[in-house]
Amino acid sequence: MTQPTENSTPDPAQDTVTAALLVIGDEILSGRTVDKNINKLATHCTDIGIRLSEVRIVSDQSQAIIGALNELRERYSYVFTTGGIGPTHDDITAQSVADALGVPLPENPEALAILEDHYPSGALTDARRLMARVPEGGVLVQNSISAAPGFMIENVIVMAGVPSIVEVMLDDVTPKLRTGKKLLSKTVQVRHPESFVATLLLELQNEYEGIAIGSYPYFRDGVVGTTVVMRGVDEEGLSKASQQLQDQLTKMDMRFS
Amino acid sequence: MTQPTENSTPDPAQDTVTAALLVIGDEILSGRTVDKNINKLATHCTDIGIRLSEVRIVSDQSQAIIGALNELRERYSYVFTTGGIGPTHDDITAQSVADALGVPLPENPEALAILEDHYPSGALTDARRLMARVPEGGVLVQNSISAAPGFMIENVIVMAGVPSIVEVMLDDVTPKLRTGKKLLSKTVQVRHPESFVATLLLELQNEYEGIAIGSYPYFRDGVVGTTVVMRGVDEEGLSKASQQLQDQLTKMDMRFS
Repeated sequence: MTQPTENSTPDPAQDTVTAALLVIGDEILSGRTVDKNINKLATHCTDIGIRLSEVRIVSDQSQAIIGALNELRERYSYVFTTGGIGPTHDDITAQSVADALGVPLPENPEALAILEDHYPSGALTDARRLMARVPEGGVLVQNSISAAPGFMIENVIVMAGVPSIVEVMLDDVTPKLRTGKKLLSKTVQVRHPESFVATLLLELQNEYEGIAIGSYPYFRDGVVGTTVVMRGVDEEGLSKASQQLQDQLTKMDMRFS
Repeated sequence: MTQPTENSTPDPAQDTVTAALLVIGDEILSGRTVDKNINKLATHCTDIGIRLSEVRIVSDQSQAIIGALNELRERYSYVFTTGGIGPTHDDITAQSVADALGVPLPENPEALAILEDHYPSGALTDARRLMARVPEGGVLVQNSISAAPGFMIENVIVMAGVPSIVEVMLDDVTPKLRTGKKLLSKTVQVRHPESFVATLLLELQNEYEGIAIGSYPYFRDGVVGTTVVMRGVDEEGLSKASQQLQDQLTKMDMRFS
């Protein structure tokens, strides 16, 4: 490994910041609740230049949470978690994160002050006070909706499960995150089944190595079509590749019509 | 380990059939597409007596697919996959499953016959013909919508990504699956924040070991409330526990109102 110098060419790989999302919740796995946080976080990550690279949904069991968390935090720049930070017996995320990282879970004075300020006198029950526990070394993630904070420790960001709270927590934590080059995309609609363009897309994929070309069939209103999505960080290459596809489709459409 | 005899008491653990879902798709991770298969499969599994225990979403990269698949098929009774079995270059699920299981990926005569029957003469292009490849030993999963089949090999069930096709594929494969006791649930609505019932729920959880009690806060129309969901295979225990909670809530509501 060579030391970078001031004049060295930037390494594009260093511009890639990755993330995983760990969704904690029996209610998603049983089908009772439809997850709304995966797409929200996926869109947010893409918008700010982080590549969401994996999502896992596990049950409310500490071994499942600890196992998944330890794998994901090794593998990706960041791990976001949603769910399990409320005041009831099934809220075991904070304890599981502390166990995974091997740190204690003390009451955090700043979190306690927020809860004391939020609840009317006498309403900070023992159960609610549990929400002031933060793994040692954790920094609070503010919750402007229901006060009880999330936290960030090392590369792990722990958030609530309620989608509206996830949204405000993401707003709070985002400025603290390292981000990379934004993943840009170009979408081309094809009025034919994807098999019609399979060879063309393969050739384009081989020509444009830095661009990921995805092909998504759809069946809508009796029409079988294909959405082609090109993704990459190089705006110029992306424009060139999508223009090339559109030009070739124009020719092919004439042939097939 | 003792041999079961005809008069032995059934082991409840043997009645538990588990599953994982592996969603394959860059388009979900980028946020472009909202997954619709997770909740569908979760609900289906609960309905037929299979416990969906984990979900993973990975990108369209063979190493990501192979790694996740090999972990999940060891750990759970079944692994379902969705996505990546079409005719284009980014459809690498069949090859990845073959690689994970260490078997070849030949053209399957039965799958080829289905495709030949489905397409008009001359329309079975080389790209479409790729969809006839099935890992050696795999059994077809029928697709009554667009013909190209999925397959089941060992404990892995490979399905399309289009939600309507997932639905018909689940209909086809379900009779072949081993199922366990159905997970039943009782829902109790609480018109108070969950911290009000935290102690009560903890006591109930300790009393009813075989029942998983989940507590889900909601904020709707200005009201902060809690949905309590009790899940278990023992109908009688479930009724007793939920009745006990309701009785205690009646008392508590009077106290808090």
